[in-house]
Amino acid sequence: MPQYNPPLRDMKFVMHEVLNVADELKLLPKHADIDVDTINAVLEEGGKFAAEVIAPINLSGDAEGCKLDKSTHEVTPPKGFKEAYAQYVEGGWPALSCDPEYGGQGLPILVNQGMYEMMNSANQAWTMYPGLSHGAYEALHAHGTPEQKATYLPKLTSGEWTGTMCLTEPHCGTDLGLLRTKAEPQADGSYKITGAKIFISAGEHDLAENIVHLVLARLPDAPVGSKGISLFVVPKFNVNADGSLGSRNGIFCAGLEHKMGIHANSTCQMVLEGAVGTMVGEPNKGLAAMFVMMNAARLGVGNQSLGLTEVAYQNAVAYAKDRIQMRALSGVKAPDKAADPIIVHPDVRKMLLTARAYAEGGRALSTYVALQLDKALASDDEDERKECEAEVALLTPIIKAFLTDNGWIATSHCMQVFGGHGFIHEWGMEQFVRDARINMIYEGTNTIQSLDLLGRKVLGNNGATLKKFGKKIAAFVEEEGTSEAMQEFINPLADLGDKVTKLTTEIGMKAFQNPDEVGAAAVDYLRVVGHLCFAYFFARMAKVALDKQGSGDPFYTAKLHTARFYFAKLLPETASLIRTARAGLPSLMDMDEALF
Amino acid sequence: MPQYNPPLRDMKFVMHEVLNVADELKLLPKHADIDVDTINAVLEEGGKFAAEVIAPINLSGDAEGCKLDKSTHEVTPPKGFKEAYAQYVEGGWPALSCDPEYGGQGLPILVNQGMYEMMNSANQAWTMYPGLSHGAYEALHAHGTPEQKATYLPKLTSGEWTGTMCLTEPHCGTDLGLLRTKAEPQADGSYKITGAKIFISAGEHDLAENIVHLVLARLPDAPVGSKGISLFVVPKFNVNADGSLGSRNGIFCAGLEHKMGIHANSTCQMVLEGAVGTMVGEPNKGLAAMFVMMNAARLGVGNQSLGLTEVAYQNAVAYAKDRIQMRALSGVKAPDKAADPIIVHPDVRKMLLTARAYAEGGRALSTYVALQLDKALASDDEDERKECEAEVALLTPIIKAFLTDNGWIATSHCMQVFGGHGFIHEWGMEQFVRDARINMIYEGTNTIQSLDLLGRKVLGNNGATLKKFGKKIAAFVEEEGTSEAMQEFINPLADLGDKVTKLTTEIGMKAFQNPDEVGAAAVDYLRVVGHLCFAYFFARMAKVALDKQGSGDPFYTAKLHTARFYFAKLLPETASLIRTARAGLPSLMDMDEALF
Repeated sequence: MPQYNPPLRDMKFVMHEVLNVADELKLLPKHADIDVDTINAVLEEGGKFAAEVIAPINLSGDAEGCKLDKSTHEVTPPKGFKEAYAQYVEGGWPALSCDPEYGGQGLPILVNQGMYEMMNSANQAWTMYPGLSHGAYEALHAHGTPEQKATYLPKLTSGEWTGTMCLTEPHCGTDLGLLRTKAEPQADGSYKITGAKIFISAGEHDLAENIVHLVLARLPDAPVGSKGISLFVVPKFNVNADGSLGSRNGIFCAGLEHKMGIHANSTCQMVLEGAVGTMVGEPNKGLAAMFVMMNAARLGVGNQSLGLTEVAYQNAVAYAKDRIQMRALSGVKAPDKAADPIIVHPDVRKMLLTARAYAEGGRALSTYVALQLDKALASDDEDERKECEAEVALLTPIIKAFLTDNGWIATSHCMQVFGGHGFIHEWGMEQFVRDARINMIYEGTNTIQSLDLLGRKVLGNNGATLKKFGKKIAAFVEEEGTSEAMQEFINPLADLGDKVTKLTTEIGMKAFQNPDEVGAAAVDYLRVVGHLCFAYFFARMAKVALDKQGSGDPFYTAKLHTARFYFAKLLPETASLIRTARAGLPSLMDMDEALF
Repeated sequence: MPQYNPPLRDMKFVMHEVLNVADELKLLPKHADIDVDTINAVLEEGGKFAAEVIAPINLSGDAEGCKLDKSTHEVTPPKGFKEAYAQYVEGGWPALSCDPEYGGQGLPILVNQGMYEMMNSANQAWTMYPGLSHGAYEALHAHGTPEQKATYLPKLTSGEWTGTMCLTEPHCGTDLGLLRTKAEPQADGSYKITGAKIFISAGEHDLAENIVHLVLARLPDAPVGSKGISLFVVPKFNVNADGSLGSRNGIFCAGLEHKMGIHANSTCQMVLEGAVGTMVGEPNKGLAAMFVMMNAARLGVGNQSLGLTEVAYQNAVAYAKDRIQMRALSGVKAPDKAADPIIVHPDVRKMLLTARAYAEGGRALSTYVALQLDKALASDDEDERKECEAEVALLTPIIKAFLTDNGWIATSHCMQVFGGHGFIHEWGMEQFVRDARINMIYEGTNTIQSLDLLGRKVLGNNGATLKKFGKKIAAFVEEEGTSEAMQEFINPLADLGDKVTKLTTEIGMKAFQNPDEVGAAAVDYLRVVGHLCFAYFFARMAKVALDKQGSGDPFYTAKLHTARFYFAKLLPETASLIRTARAGLPSLMDMDEALF
């Protein structure tokens, strides 16, 4: 069974030594009391919960899966899941970054994200049960009526109830404008909702006493397309005026999907048979309200793959140090053993370091974005709020797509380190790969993310947001440009920055002629900008590590090596990506559809 | 459920229009009677078997898996597997390329390989049951005593019995020198073999009445390491002098592995409890004898991923033409529908064309190598035999590693085309991904393949074999260099050829200083040479397609488009690979093991 050690040292390094998050957060009125010790204490306790409570039921949960009783429509998750959730609620974890007005602890998003990274490492499928609640919480917090807030937010905050997002239908996923679920207004101001939804994560289970479904549906007179969609809150059990649970509402699980991974999370086909709901936000503006949830969810999905990358790395390292097989080409390294541990082989190290660098780069970028998100939500300066919001919007598709593509590569490499054993369930490595695969698909496929980045976030405002972010990089390059020791990091970073500027202009010009050029280049473009972000944060981390080399702490030596590996072996991917992005549209569109 | 249409048009194009295999094969005495019609007739019938008999039980087989009865040690594969195997035997398929002396049809390896590509597309897990027999057949054919041949070869040829390769033990896979299974000589000349083997594909099942295990073990006085390993044939049921089945031999399935994929193939833990066997070949030279089987097996594994790439492509194309979602960025394409079919989106096409190009390039390279193998085995000119053998040896690790890495990329892309549905079992796409993953591991991991290529096959003889292959490419470049229409293919091919020459020299020089430099560069190097092969064959295919453009057959137009896509979007990967290969060892080895 895989092991997991929360990477607290690296989390603290990124938060406190690279980003100085406590100083930044203290400037925000609602976080004026935050300090390093509080952040660390929460992460330490959270790490214990992840490693001791939910990691041990990850492999068994995958093997067992969820069960649906078709007569009662009740779903039973695997053994131990309910008990772990009770512990989670008892520990107050759901409330971590929720609003104190509804019982939350009001801690920064950044701390919650650290907690979630560890839970995702330990057990992605389990973590999705509480994880989906956040989307419902945020949509209701932003758009709910006072009554809806009073009814649902305290229970979602305490974790007594969980939430879902009911968007997808069999014929529409990406294109929600096509959806058909109907909402008929009732005399009492409520709605009766009828339709079928699929791929509803945590759609039905016995972990919580009620489930709060956020459902997209159409009003009878709604315009066609995406401008005719409204958002409704539909509880599993209707809620009485005194807050107690009333009758069973007409929203049922009709089937569980058999999936490649995240077996322990119930992916439900939901049927709504005149289910009673109330509207959230304004009529026909449901998609906008839903996007509040989806942006947070996209960061959350990137974080899932960060967690998987980290845990896969840890286990592959342990195996590579333990497993003996063949001798090093450069001569015997472990003469006391029948063979050398496989970590002596350069390509084994390359696979391990790829995962390590993707985990460390991903953690730095994610933590930075979480900090910007905290500022976007809590700064008392409107300009700062807007600027941070724009930067978060720019970097969200990168975190979603770049981190999940990297997680797929990294978990597959770590599995490969195990040779044949990697393919066997009991070692747990193949589960990480299978679980990682969904992250490239849900909450908007990675292609959709790339179109969001290039089409909307970059070209949509003539590159203004990207330029602002680029100025931060340029300032760092300027600052460190004279340091001899930093040359090896600064030069390729500056070079890539120039190339991104040039590439962006070039694609922008072509897209002016034919908008499909955006679609032809977007996926490659996103990876190039992802590497620019990683190069920037690895350079910043290397700077800190160089400054602290004298401390004798080997952590800094390891950080420097990882940064050097990143620049030598991963960043060069951009050479190909820039070429294929520039190759553009012709080779994709010239072939007639009939010839495929 | 996925569909499968045997790609007969492309197979015939490669065989007859690009490689002119019939003319080449006719020069070999044993294939003097071969002709285009015979080859085509076998492929057409074989395609029917694949598509009609084994494709329909692929998805159900994956869901059902194999069952072990621990009391009897008997294994039952999924429903329909036994019946399909009976049809396979009845059709005479096992005998296709076997020696007529033992009942075989004596057809070229190339034809058998085409048949296997189709069976791998249809059902990789099922195909492994007959597939493993070939290894046993070849080892016994090459090294068996006349008695062993008479006992086993006719039954393996007819398919009445199947075979296995029992190499791996829990503590040793790659490093077979560590193996511990013991063989004690008996007074009657036989051996009693005791030990434990794992990962034995098709190790136990009820498809055939007997299973012929080829087992590696140590004699009592054997030297340590790989020079003390002998090969034995150990039947499940002992064979009486008259050829009838005798007593049950002491080799049992003690457990089935729970795996990521190929669920329908029984991956067995085998226990040998004084099992009776006879030696194959000479004492302590078992590893060499086993390598006869392993080289063929490595080509077979590349062929498995070729099959998966093709079938994943076909299904993703069908879905992309059918599924409507969003409008093209360049404007509405299907005004009669609520949305455009997703094949209008450039990145969907990029994913599809990636799979298509990897399938077509892989088929061309594999068919070429199969032809060289037929020449290596059957030419009456010893020089030609040796030259072909060397070329096959050079290209075998490329087929194994490049095609299986490509298959992983391609099946994952094709799954992505399905969005959320790709993650669901019933669509079959995620099964292709899971099945494809083992191909990068077994029969020597892809890292091992890359070391075999760079260390042994290239640097091991100072690049002589690579140079000979390079001369073929150079001759083609020379020949077509003046053709205006061929410039777009010839220029990048010639350029990559130069770069490979330079890179090889450079790594060779470095490896002279430190042999670990081979391990640092090998995986990147293999992909670069893989692309050189694909560029060569795509250029050759483009040449034929250009010549036949006037025929009006749209096949040639599609071939040209695919070739152009390959050069525009896939070949540029070499730009990054060359950089990372050249970055060499330091960033991999500088970090102390303790810091991982």
